[in-house]
Amino acid sequence: MNKPHEYYIRRCLELAGMGNPHPNPYVGAVVVHGNGEIIAEGYHNMAGEEHAEAQALHKSKVNIQNAKLYINLEPCCYIGRVHPCTDAIISSGIKTVIVAMKDPNPRVNGKGIEILRCSGINVTVGVLQKEARLLNEQFVTFHAKHRPFIALKLATTLDGKIATRAGDSKWITSLKMRAHTRLLRARHQAILIGVNTVLKDDPHLGARSFGKRDQMRIILDSKLRSPLKAKALRDKNVIIATTSRATLKKIKSLEKQGIFVWVCASDRRGFVHLPKFMERMRDHGIISCFVEGGGRVASSFLSEGLVDKIYWAIAPKILGDEKAVSAISGRGILTMRSAMRLKNARYTQIDDDILCEGYTR
Amino acid sequence: MNKPHEYYIRRCLELAGMGNPHPNPYVGAVVVHGNGEIIAEGYHNMAGEEHAEAQALHKSKVNIQNAKLYINLEPCCYIGRVHPCTDAIISSGIKTVIVAMKDPNPRVNGKGIEILRCSGINVTVGVLQKEARLLNEQFVTFHAKHRPFIALKLATTLDGKIATRAGDSKWITSLKMRAHTRLLRARHQAILIGVNTVLKDDPHLGARSFGKRDQMRIILDSKLRSPLKAKALRDKNVIIATTSRATLKKIKSLEKQGIFVWVCASDRRGFVHLPKFMERMRDHGIISCFVEGGGRVASSFLSEGLVDKIYWAIAPKILGDEKAVSAISGRGILTMRSAMRLKNARYTQIDDDILCEGYTR
Repeated sequence: MNKPHEYYIRRCLELAGMGNPHPNPYVGAVVVHGNGEIIAEGYHNMAGEEHAEAQALHKSKVNIQNAKLYINLEPCCYIGRVHPCTDAIISSGIKTVIVAMKDPNPRVNGKGIEILRCSGINVTVGVLQKEARLLNEQFVTFHAKHRPFIALKLATTLDGKIATRAGDSKWITSLKMRAHTRLLRARHQAILIGVNTVLKDDPHLGARSFGKRDQMRIILDSKLRSPLKAKALRDKNVIIATTSRATLKKIKSLEKQGIFVWVCASDRRGFVHLPKFMERMRDHGIISCFVEGGGRVASSFLSEGLVDKIYWAIAPKILGDEKAVSAISGRGILTMRSAMRLKNARYTQIDDDILCEGYTR
Repeated sequence: MNKPHEYYIRRCLELAGMGNPHPNPYVGAVVVHGNGEIIAEGYHNMAGEEHAEAQALHKSKVNIQNAKLYINLEPCCYIGRVHPCTDAIISSGIKTVIVAMKDPNPRVNGKGIEILRCSGINVTVGVLQKEARLLNEQFVTFHAKHRPFIALKLATTLDGKIATRAGDSKWITSLKMRAHTRLLRARHQAILIGVNTVLKDDPHLGARSFGKRDQMRIILDSKLRSPLKAKALRDKNVIIATTSRATLKKIKSLEKQGIFVWVCASDRRGFVHLPKFMERMRDHGIISCFVEGGGRVASSFLSEGLVDKIYWAIAPKILGDEKAVSAISGRGILTMRSAMRLKNARYTQIDDDILCEGYTR
């Protein structure tokens, strides 16, 4: 029996989430037989691989004249690394397509739907649109606002500390929360940390989950102090953003190692000028960046108003020391009313810790 | 049909929670007919009023020879403000009694059960004992450890701040969270604040819910700076704990107003010596105290190791100012590993805020 459109679109959203397609959007597709049965499914796994719609249609072995195609995003209509999905849909002979949302990418943005309609296909748009936009919030922000989507991740004690007065920060949250953070990491195109974190913790910054490609790593390093042997520099998937304070010699040795070095404008304090750096990320096609710290990097992104989403993990611990390191520093806020308030805050308990997620705008 | 013991004891626990019986324990009782039907219920509403068991038995109009009595706490067996419940049970003719836990009060502590058994009543003890102990954790602590149960309540931003650098703290959490806090307040025998909070906020400290009696209020005020017209001093249900630094004149005027003034020993810094003050609360029969702040009071109770339970409300707000006021001050903790860790942490979302509850031991 046929179920409502929402049922099949929800399945598309589920499928979509299984991929790791940055900088492409998350897309899932299902082909539904006239009797309501799902006869094929597909999702876009990785940039350069087959798109969800084409995949689902290829898998549909039975006659699909009376079938319906459900997709959480308007199909593409231009020749990229793969053929346009509109072509695949038209040539499949399918007559009904249900789409959750228009693709905000200016190369599509309604044209895909128009092409299908001109070929006599019946297209419905707008089923579970809100959920679909949320799933692709990074992609939507990038194309609608022409800048990468910035997520900031923090982990503190109940009293808001990220380290003791002696600088110790290992560990604040539980093993399970830290594993969950690596999953969040893997859902963004790039991870960003400051050079102090490289020097102090020498983090690996890998997704560390089997079969997942490691993320692109970005290091803010205005004087290029990152050691050549830092774990984060282990492969060629790294960008170091620096300023004219870096020596040419260090730039050369990093580049020889396959690291991209971006010499950026500096701000008044001599650090990388973040708004300019954001433009460079955008021009490089990076749709989203997961900012993991440390404290100064987090504070700078926040005070420049560059953060879209915050993931704040809290462990039920108390340092009880006003001289321990506060999570965010630097803003001279005088009234509680003018504190930054996260929108649509939601909470997830992981082990004994709690994760708060919310939006800054 | 008869349900398992747990079912009826759970109902006792529910009923028990409807009362406000401090310094007595929360007790609920149900009388269950031979066919499994509940024929009468009772709970101990307020100290001095009829006990739960007696109430349930009085309400049982039908023949209760074959009935069972369920209670979440061993019945009392001494003459207090009411007759011993053991008498009421024996004279009711009931032959089976199921009790969740022994009463830790040394005047009972097994004697109630023994008296029933000696009268030929079949007594089962230990059904949902853990839940029963949790419900009466304040009463259990008071009798087993000979000291009041101390709960500390805090409200902070995500970054652990209780006020801006200018001292503004209105409001951190939402209206609903603040209403919930008043409910928590009403579940403790006394509320405690420091004189700075009296001077700065002049709080009312009432339960402000219809039909509920206002709690006993305790103010720590080493120099007796509380104004005679402070809202918290509105009735005779107040104790001010002070030191020899208070003037006799101020003591007299407060006492004339019906306020109890306790002149306590002072600590090295000249404040009320908290462990001595705890002994005085105990001798006064106060089984539990809800410590509401401010920052210095909270820090002192914590650093003296006097806190049993913490209620920490967090609003999804960021002050982002390392100079804003931290929730807890004063301990020079150097490693994250030695941070205080709350046990059995659980979380409740209220509006956009989250409440973390946990135990310090």
